[in-house]
Amino acid sequence: MASSRYEADGFSGTATPSPTVPREAGPVVGTYILRPNQLGAGAHVANAAFMVASDAQRSGVGRRMAEHCLDEARRMGFCAMQFNFVVSTNVPAIHLWERLGFKIVGTLPGAFHHPEKGYVDVYVMYRSLL
Amino acid sequence: MASSRYEADGFSGTATPSPTVPREAGPVVGTYILRPNQLGAGAHVANAAFMVASDAQRSGVGRRMAEHCLDEARRMGFCAMQFNFVVSTNVPAIHLWERLGFKIVGTLPGAFHHPEKGYVDVYVMYRSLL
Repeated sequence: MASSRYEADGFSGTATPSPTVPREAGPVVGTYILRPNQLGAGAHVANAAFMVASDAQRSGVGRRMAEHCLDEARRMGFCAMQFNFVVSTNVPAIHLWERLGFKIVGTLPGAFHHPEKGYVDVYVMYRSLL
Repeated sequence: MASSRYEADGFSGTATPSPTVPREAGPVVGTYILRPNQLGAGAHVANAAFMVASDAQRSGVGRRMAEHCLDEARRMGFCAMQFNFVVSTNVPAIHLWERLGFKIVGTLPGAFHHPEKGYVDVYVMYRSLL
């Protein structure tokens, strides 16, 4: 999948493998990466990871990045998107992914060692893009 | 996790990140890799991948490698082992993992593009080592 530069809807970036950065009026407030989740015969499923600056939490930028990422994944021809490691205690993220059409398709028992809560489950989340 | 060389039970190799090779009387008949499935707070769960030479299929070497790998993972202190991408049509592998105590903890819809069967499901399989 070729890398391509784009500037649209308040975002600028390059497709896989470079991170995509949403631009506000000034500083970078977050970034995401979009890539195939597997090589070869699994490369039709996308994986993405997101990061929001600490002082931009709860500003909606995460949701905007996710929507942008889903559109971009469709544009690139991916058939589905999968998150491999959604920590079960990260309830705001899980709610966001569910609102965006993702479902929990797997539960990894105790796969994350939470600094306060100990070993907690991790979800695999998935949605079709077709 | 430090890498360590070992020679035991007909196997020789180094622990993560080098592949482990079972030795028969002559040629190499297979190899596996054992490593953390995630970094940081997910590094207590191991991941492994196996390869058996085409002329050594159905000789039991896969099972012997898997048993060796599970022992090695315990020895290295891993709490669990996870396979991220078990193609649902690979019934012999699934049966082997189930006999070795693994359970299907996730199903990724159509995540593998099979050359003859089209898009088929993929399983995430897991077992505790505690």
